[in-house]
Amino acid sequence: MKILDQGYLVLIESWGSDERIVEAARMSTGKGFLGWGTQDVPGDERLLRYLYENKHATPFEMAGMTIEAKAPIMVFREWHRHRTQSYNEMSARYIPLPDEDYMPDAQRLMLNAGNNKQAQGMGAALVETDALEWLAELGELYAHEQRVYESGLKRGVPKEIARLATSVGRYSRMRASANLRNWLGFLILRMDQKAQWEIRQYANAIGDLIATSFPRTWALFSERSR
Amino acid sequence: MKILDQGYLVLIESWGSDERIVEAARMSTGKGFLGWGTQDVPGDERLLRYLYENKHATPFEMAGMTIEAKAPIMVFREWHRHRTQSYNEMSARYIPLPDEDYMPDAQRLMLNAGNNKQAQGMGAALVETDALEWLAELGELYAHEQRVYESGLKRGVPKEIARLATSVGRYSRMRASANLRNWLGFLILRMDQKAQWEIRQYANAIGDLIATSFPRTWALFSERSR
Amino acid sequence: MKILDQGYLVLIESWGSDERIVEAARMSTGKGFLGWGTQDVPGDERLLRYLYENKHATPFEMAGMTIEAKAPIMVFREWHRHRTQSYNEMSARYIPLPDEDYMPDAQRLMLNAGNNKQAQGMGAALVETDALEWLAELGELYAHEQRVYESGLKRGVPKEIARLATSVGRYSRMRASANLRNWLGFLILRMDQKAQWEIRQYANAIGDLIATSFPRTWALFSERSR
Amino acid sequence: MKILDQGYLVLIESWGSDERIVEAARMSTGKGFLGWGTQDVPGDERLLRYLYENKHATPFEMAGMTIEAKAPIMVFREWHRHRTQSYNEMSARYIPLPDEDYMPDAQRLMLNAGNNKQAQGMGAALVETDALEWLAELGELYAHEQRVYESGLKRGVPKEIARLATSVGRYSRMRASANLRNWLGFLILRMDQKAQWEIRQYANAIGDLIATSFPRTWALFSERSR
Repeated sequence: MKILDQGYLVLIESWGSDERIVEAARMSTGKGFLGWGTQDVPGDERLLRYLYENKHATPFEMAGMTIEAKAPIMVFREWHRHRTQSYNEMSARYIPLPDEDYMPDAQRLMLNAGNNKQAQGMGAALVETDALEWLAELGELYAHEQRVYESGLKRGVPKEIARLATSVGRYSRMRASANLRNWLGFLILRMDQKAQWEIRQYANAIGDLIATSFPRTWALFSERSR
Repeated sequence: MKILDQGYLVLIESWGSDERIVEAARMSTGKGFLGWGTQDVPGDERLLRYLYENKHATPFEMAGMTIEAKAPIMVFREWHRHRTQSYNEMSARYIPLPDEDYMPDAQRLMLNAGNNKQAQGMGAALVETDALEWLAELGELYAHEQRVYESGLKRGVPKEIARLATSVGRYSRMRASANLRNWLGFLILRMDQKAQWEIRQYANAIGDLIATSFPRTWALFSERSR
Repeated sequence: MKILDQGYLVLIESWGSDERIVEAARMSTGKGFLGWGTQDVPGDERLLRYLYENKHATPFEMAGMTIEAKAPIMVFREWHRHRTQSYNEMSARYIPLPDEDYMPDAQRLMLNAGNNKQAQGMGAALVETDALEWLAELGELYAHEQRVYESGLKRGVPKEIARLATSVGRYSRMRASANLRNWLGFLILRMDQKAQWEIRQYANAIGDLIATSFPRTWALFSERSR
Repeated sequence: MKILDQGYLVLIESWGSDERIVEAARMSTGKGFLGWGTQDVPGDERLLRYLYENKHATPFEMAGMTIEAKAPIMVFREWHRHRTQSYNEMSARYIPLPDEDYMPDAQRLMLNAGNNKQAQGMGAALVETDALEWLAELGELYAHEQRVYESGLKRGVPKEIARLATSVGRYSRMRASANLRNWLGFLILRMDQKAQWEIRQYANAIGDLIATSFPRTWALFSERSR
């Protein structure tokens, strides 16, 4: 799934299922032990809903997903504040980061995110000419950064220091893994209108993956979030 | 896998693989992005070893296992101190616990666990006659407990209170899920000679499951623990 | 604070304060750096409320409490499912547990917890005579357990096995430590009407400690929970 | 404590003590309950050493520290991978970041960190003239970045987007809180010779704070790490 101008999000693998969640929940009551089968007996739907609505969250820890994402450092900075996911990210200490920086378009800059002050400018409303002019400035700046980065690497400046020349708009890559309870917690915060537009695009894509792998859980989540 | 007199341990599912761990580790260096394939290129073996020996633990979070276990409450009490696993356990608030209690044999009581003082008695060495006599006392006690438990349930005592009549030797069941890093951390403590013999039997069984699903990681773990 | 028939809960120490929480929150906006003082400027009250109502939970991680509790094993079993607290508990592997078991009174057995099925019996309503008779049975059982426990210890049965004779009603002791965000999460679940009456008594006592150390946070919590 | 060219690290508060750690450990054995006093009885020193050397880590969770740090984003990126600490950081979504960027000196660039390849350049050894010239280039780049950042803010570009113009060398501020076990885990990785020189300066400063608040734990840590 392509995201932003040069990013992506891909499912590496998922584990568990809506049925496994129900099975785990049935451990509490003895109806769901090994040998009892995992057939979709009447009542599963209601049990799943009961769990979800009553914050019995632990059964949702019995399923999960690992994804791979390419996103601007700015986005990963917000993402990594979610401390219940596992991460493996590309490191500019080990390899030079590819020359790829996030370049939003003018429409993005002029998004009016309603009562979300962070999505608005600080003074007068932004007009299109200004948006376009600023993006041109940003483009030149990115080129300047890359020249200084390469100059450093060429001269023998350690990679871990040469990276000072790169911006928080530079693209990086990572794998992230979490159980379903924690992915849903991530989405509650990052699909919200108050979340920054960029990370919301990744959150929406994760929502799509969950909808495919865990359709019944996703239906409950969507219903409750509305 | 049968464990103790009436317990078991079963793999529900595993995710990830030795190869996924290597792939995740290669994220740091850019060699292992999507599209590069996951073929077992020369160097994987060495990379896995490097990770393991240098405590680069995060790639081992990209794989994991969910198991189901039946064990005495006493064992689960120790198990649940591992706070990085997810648990769903049978609850005596919701259903009466089946009449199953852990009954060790005389050999177990007389195990001499070397410098492990907790595995030894407090006074003189235990002789077989005493071991057998005490086990008979324990058997009678278990029967007495069950009578009081059933009497409570029959009279209308709430299940959550009637369970006061059950011992920490009573069997319970649960599902437990964790990533591979955390399972290995569990095994380091619970396969150790200082761990109680009972939980060690479960830890050994988990080791067997890991050996099957993650053979190369297991080889490194076994080598290092020796 | 005395709890149940033989338990207690004591504050060992707290750290942080309502003011520290506000300071930490002000880090985001630059108003609250070192040197700006921690004076109670107008706006703190509103900021704290804003944080609480908008689930900005991280500032509440900048304060916390360590407590010591004596409670039946049955209560600790529920408590330890909260995996974000740190625990140090007495161990029956190291010392014989004192002869102290939880003995509820007849009123407790007959509590009608409304729509909480777990607090009710399984059949007919419990009558006082039955409650009293069952408590007498339980008392005899506890005495029998202690005889078998002591007999084991005396014969040289390892402490870690002799404890099979003790019930989940036996008292144990522990220290528990967590940040304020996690204590509040514990209280949401354990002060709830659906929580077992016994752990609710401990949760209420923790609430009293929070009310003393973090009065403004507590006021918001109480208001929202009502 | 001043760190790097414009950073700092300050203790906000610590809780617990070497004595509290010993007390918590004594919970296991019954020697250390409330009312037994916390006097420094003979044996404490040996117990603390025993805990430390045998990886009985939980008592070290009964103490902790909250600090405030100002550091380049690049340093916080590494820091935040430690998922057991709590963080509250300044946000460029809420306020424009002050015009402060990390400017290393030529000596730093030429550090030869032995077998640490990341601290070395990619080609020939770096000579002082090149180091100085590159730092001049970096200085000009930082100035260019600030011009584009301010231009964006002035035109009405949202703060959350205007920050694309800032580098990973820009200073940010945060509070971080963790228990002592987790701080020691952080130091093991970040005081290591393989850690980047910049974060090592912060780790060393945290070590100094621990040495003051928890002198006996620190003595054991230093001895073992040597």
